[in-house]
Amino acid sequence: MSSHIFQEAKLRAFTKSVFFAMGCSEEHAALATDVLIASDLRGIDSHGVARLSGYIRLWKKNRINPAPNIRIIHETASTATIDGDGGLGLVVAPFAMQIAMEKADKYGSGWVSVKNSNHFGIAGYHAMQAVSRDMIGIAMTNASPLVAPTFTTERLLGTNPMCYAFPAGKYPPVIVDMATAAAANGKLEIAQREGKSIPEGWVQTSSGSSTTDAHALKGGGSLLPLGSDREHGSHKGFGLSATVDILTSILSGANYGPWVPPFVAFLDPLPSLPGEGIGHFHGALRIDGFRPAEDFKNHMDNWIERFKAAKPIDPEQPLVIPGEPETAAEAIRKVEGIPLSQPVVKDLEELADMLQIERLA
Amino acid sequence: MSSHIFQEAKLRAFTKSVFFAMGCSEEHAALATDVLIASDLRGIDSHGVARLSGYIRLWKKNRINPAPNIRIIHETASTATIDGDGGLGLVVAPFAMQIAMEKADKYGSGWVSVKNSNHFGIAGYHAMQAVSRDMIGIAMTNASPLVAPTFTTERLLGTNPMCYAFPAGKYPPVIVDMATAAAANGKLEIAQREGKSIPEGWVQTSSGSSTTDAHALKGGGSLLPLGSDREHGSHKGFGLSATVDILTSILSGANYGPWVPPFVAFLDPLPSLPGEGIGHFHGALRIDGFRPAEDFKNHMDNWIERFKAAKPIDPEQPLVIPGEPETAAEAIRKVEGIPLSQPVVKDLEELADMLQIERLA
Repeated sequence: MSSHIFQEAKLRAFTKSVFFAMGCSEEHAALATDVLIASDLRGIDSHGVARLSGYIRLWKKNRINPAPNIRIIHETASTATIDGDGGLGLVVAPFAMQIAMEKADKYGSGWVSVKNSNHFGIAGYHAMQAVSRDMIGIAMTNASPLVAPTFTTERLLGTNPMCYAFPAGKYPPVIVDMATAAAANGKLEIAQREGKSIPEGWVQTSSGSSTTDAHALKGGGSLLPLGSDREHGSHKGFGLSATVDILTSILSGANYGPWVPPFVAFLDPLPSLPGEGIGHFHGALRIDGFRPAEDFKNHMDNWIERFKAAKPIDPEQPLVIPGEPETAAEAIRKVEGIPLSQPVVKDLEELADMLQIERLA
Repeated sequence: MSSHIFQEAKLRAFTKSVFFAMGCSEEHAALATDVLIASDLRGIDSHGVARLSGYIRLWKKNRINPAPNIRIIHETASTATIDGDGGLGLVVAPFAMQIAMEKADKYGSGWVSVKNSNHFGIAGYHAMQAVSRDMIGIAMTNASPLVAPTFTTERLLGTNPMCYAFPAGKYPPVIVDMATAAAANGKLEIAQREGKSIPEGWVQTSSGSSTTDAHALKGGGSLLPLGSDREHGSHKGFGLSATVDILTSILSGANYGPWVPPFVAFLDPLPSLPGEGIGHFHGALRIDGFRPAEDFKNHMDNWIERFKAAKPIDPEQPLVIPGEPETAAEAIRKVEGIPLSQPVVKDLEELADMLQIERLA
């Protein structure tokens, strides 16, 4: 697919102008932009500016509050619950992460559950905030339902990602940032665009049969949990996804399971919701609450070196440290710019015209 | 396979006498017994009294200290590091969990990383301690290396289990207790005993080829991470296992990766270890640090009811709530007794004779 390359600064200015047009404050627009651009820089194209028009559509339906009063509604020394007031997850989650880190500064750790929020971009952005402060960062969110638990045909869970970010010494941080489904929706979209089939174990049909049809979700199919089937541990993927759902939403008072509001504006939330908005869960563990940070980082370096030296099956494909490809992409894109596919560029042009702001290109 | 049924009280008395013979204190023998019997009661036969002789063999090699001075070596309000002094994980982990819960009582949450420990039984036992106190319990441990990271042929990680335990209201707690490998070693042992092959995706050969040979580990093969192969997300299983390894051991000062000491006495630890013993990580989150516990539990009940009502693929096989089969097994075995297979009974008889204590049967 043809693509255009945009320098980071240009894409950043455009993105910020979109959030301004939505009614965000200067501070919120800059923050939301930073989250989205980080995703594009790190090569996670599905969660960057490609999502801008989706946020705008939700805002137009009054499902995103551009000027939220984000606040702590309950807390102890090391825990808090935050009401995101229907704001962009892109600004609610950084607020929550900040509280978690402040608590970790004072009390060794901080844990924040968030209700009444929206899509928060990549989990990695939020968890990584902790790393430069010599903390371990944790971020999770629930998401609109697409995944069927083991043995069922109903979409009851989102791809519910979790991220753990660990600082290292001379090496980049280790970032475990993963959806708890076997494959994320973005991979299906790539196969759809290319007219290809997908591997078995990603998706099932509406009756629960295995399928290689990349379009099976449109026929009422569902994504499968990590593990794909019971024999290969899909009950574990279901358990992980359930864990994210509970920590993010039952703990905070957000919606859970099938009641999580859809991320797309053309689907309405279900009636009689049990909670408010979607939920996140953030954590920060101060490393020197356990041992000196230098000791930890030296051993992280040793861990990374030992794992990178692992004997590969194929010498052309060595072990990948979690987060390594994204760090490499960021180094390149910071210099060479960010490629956007033609459909994304077109989408952003239409968005600019609709909002009456200057076009990107 | 033929089996004998033993009443819980009888098995408990015998197990305690084994730990006494090892030199454990009254308190430690009772505690270690409670952990093992909980596993047998909950139907996790691989982690109960079947492991007693293995613990004894490690003790005979001076790799378990029966009278450890378990102590906090570093702490903040909500975090601590514990030195297990080479003790049984069965007594070190409950100590750590206790500290985590005391900190949660005072500061909202408690997080404890543990070094210099040994095999701690089922993760679920430890995490579940929090539930009756209206807390969410978390327990993880690393384990001797059997799992090869994605793209490699080296056993660099253990099956590294993680457990999250969530209290509910009128229903039993939700217990997500899972190894981060596609299948645990116990499943291979069952196939070996029955002379059966195993599904593809559990194990690879020493050269990294897929295999259905239940004996492939003996030929230098390795277990595969949850997800089985890259296409189905084995990099996520690797990432989860790495997360457990780092939280349990790099954070505490225990051994990690390939240096984790073997659980079997006939394999010696590697020379020049980077840490001490194996590592655990425990957490407790006080629910009313986020919202009133009654609200949380009511929504947990609603979550459980909605998920149990999910449309099944096969009406004979409804959705399984995490922890439900173990809770059901416990209810039955509390009344009807605990079945032990003939080889386990024989093993325990030989153990009794060796230790000169009264036989079980």
